[in-house]
Parts: sequence; structure tokens; C-alpha cells
Amino acid sequence: MTTRNLAILIFDDVEVLDFCGPFEVFSVAGHFVDPVAFEVYTVAEQAGPVIARNGLSVNPHHQLNDCPPPDVLIVPGGQGTRTQMHNPVLTDWIKQVAGKSELLLSVCTGALMLAKAGLLNGLDVTTHANSIEALRELVPDATVHPDRRFIDNGRVICSAGIAAGIDMSFHVVARLLGTEVAEKTSQHMEYPWEPPSR
Amino acid sequence: MTTRNLAILIFDDVEVLDFCGPFEVFSVAGHFVDPVAFEVYTVAEQAGPVIARNGLSVNPHHQLNDCPPPDVLIVPGGQGTRTQMHNPVLTDWIKQVAGKSELLLSVCTGALMLAKAGLLNGLDVTTHANSIEALRELVPDATVHPDRRFIDNGRVICSAGIAAGIDMSFHVVARLLGTEVAEKTSQHMEYPWEPPSR
Repeated sequence: MTTRNLAILIFDDVEVLDFCGPFEVFSVAGHFVDPVAFEVYTVAEQAGPVIARNGLSVNPHHQLNDCPPPDVLIVPGGQGTRTQMHNPVLTDWIKQVAGKSELLLSVCTGALMLAKAGLLNGLDVTTHANSIEALRELVPDATVHPDRRFIDNGRVICSAGIAAGIDMSFHVVARLLGTEVAEKTSQHMEYPWEPPSR
Repeated sequence: MTTRNLAILIFDDVEVLDFCGPFEVFSVAGHFVDPVAFEVYTVAEQAGPVIARNGLSVNPHHQLNDCPPPDVLIVPGGQGTRTQMHNPVLTDWIKQVAGKSELLLSVCTGALMLAKAGLLNGLDVTTHANSIEALRELVPDATVHPDRRFIDNGRVICSAGIAAGIDMSFHVVARLLGTEVAEKTSQHMEYPWEPPSR
């Protein structure tokens, strides 16, 4: 198995757990296989600190113009998406990257960014409970599920609000690396995850 | 109700979810009351970026010498505690701050830091599953519980590994602000938390 590039897009007012939950799951899971399964990095539009929701200051590893091509792209949510969903620099980049990536994941209102990038048409999707109607308006031909933690369309996977991104990440780890690695990860993280068949 | 200063200590190789989980819970919860319940900030020994476990780069809000006195101090864990538990600058600071704070919380192997600071003697404590024996050796007169998500001694509260810090944070929110605020927080975060009486 080869190492996958896993990029997490960050921007001002990104919700902290939206990106740190998946960061933790994929980073921990990746080290249970050899070579490491994921090269996990953050990417932002510009250089300099990103001030996440409630003031956490994070230095992105890359900017859009020097970002290694992601095999997996995660777009988290947060208050910042209300502005950034109207930022064509970001939505164009997401669209361009998504066209070449193996997987495209959204957490919470990150789905609004994917919707504006035109990547959710016709799919089964979800988002934070407070943004279900906004997502319905943005992609009228998608089927929006307010009652699901995450929805796997194959290449595009959307999760519900904030903490649901952790559950989606475990699902993706199990899908890519097997349930044994997902279980080892949940044990190490002391997070209650069970394979869905149980 | 007044605003409490809530400091989260960070250091190189701090586990990401150990500090981001509580950061999220307390930040979100604080905004359900007026005035805001918690001024949440990160604090590190020195200025400049802290490189958390697996490479997340975070700029602390304060250094030890300019940190507003915390009412609540959270000490997270991670691989970095193996080094930092032997750093008297940090353990002395923790001891000094803890003497004046209302609450002292550890996540994961943050308990090893509190143990080295001499703050766990005689208490009921826990830590990450992999460090249970190390904690027993550090504080032979404490009662170490490998089977609990968190343990509330009144002023000192310890949680188990990584994700258990989120559950401890909800417990503290419920204790300080009431179960209604904790429930609103869990709904907003879409994290499955229930008051223990149910």
C-alpha cells in the first residue's frame, strides 16, 4: 500500500473540531501500517496564521499554490464557510483538486463549499442540522438527509455537524485500510467506534 | 455568572484531539450564556509555534510569563509529556497555577504532568490505557482507575485517553453551567452526550 496525500482545507473561522477530529483519526490510523498510510497536512488560501473559530491560531502547512496534489481532500465547516463559500478562489481550487482526487470529504458546513463548487449535484448528502435548508436550496437535485451521521457516495462522502466528522473518518479508515486498523485507531484514541456490521 | 479564564497548556508533541476536544466543548458551551462563560486560550512555555503531534502547527495565545491567571487549567497529553513531565519549568508553573485555580483538569497522559507536579497524591485518577502503570509508579498513594472515562475529585479531574477529554469537558460544563447548557452544546456539536442520570 502506498502513502496517500490527505489535505485538510482550513480558513478563518473554520470550526476547530471539524478539522482536528479528522486530523487526529487519519494521523493515528496511518501509523498502524507501513509505510504510513496518510501524509496529513493543512492547506490554506494564503500564507500566515489561520484564526479558527473561537480563536485557535494555526499555521497551514501549505498554500493553494504549493499544495501537494491530494489523494483525499477534506473540507471542514464552521462559520467561515458562510464567507468562503462565496470565494471563487477556494471553490475553483476545490473543484480542480476534486477532479483528480480519489476521495472528497466534507464535514459539517463544508458541504456548502462543495455545493458551491458544483460537486454535490445528484448525490445523497448531509451537513450540520442548522444548515440542512441552506444545503437543500444550494443543490435542489441532491437528496439531503438530516438524520444521517455521514453518507458515502463512493467518491464523495459528506458528514453531519462537527463531531460527525470523526465518525466519517473512522468509516473512511475502515474502507481504505480495513476494520482492524480502524479498531486499533479507536482503541488508541479511546473513541467508541464499532464496525457497522456489529 | 462571571467569565472564567480557561487555559489549555500546549507543548511540542501534544496530542491534537487532547487539546482541541476540550477547546471546542468549552468554547461552544461558553457562548450559550451571557456573559460568555469561558475565555478559552492556549498557553505554552515559550513564544513561537508549537508543533503538536503529527505536525499540526499552533500559535499559543500566551506564554507562561504573560498568561492571565486561569480559573480552569487543562493539561492535555501526548507523546510530548514523556519529555515535558521532566521539565521543572512546566511542572512548577502547573503547581503554582493549580494552587490558585478553581479546577485542574488532565486529559490522557496530562495526568503524568500533574503527578510530577505533586498534585495527584491520594486522589482517584486515570490516564491513557497505555500509561496506567506509569501513573501507578509515579503516584503510589493514588488510586488509579483503568476503567473510567474520567474521575472528578472535586477540584482535580482526570480523564482517560484522547477522546475521553471530550466527555470530561461535557461533565465540567454540566457541573459549572448546568445540564441544559451541556445539552445545547452536545446538540450543536452533534456529539452524543447524555446527562448521567438518564
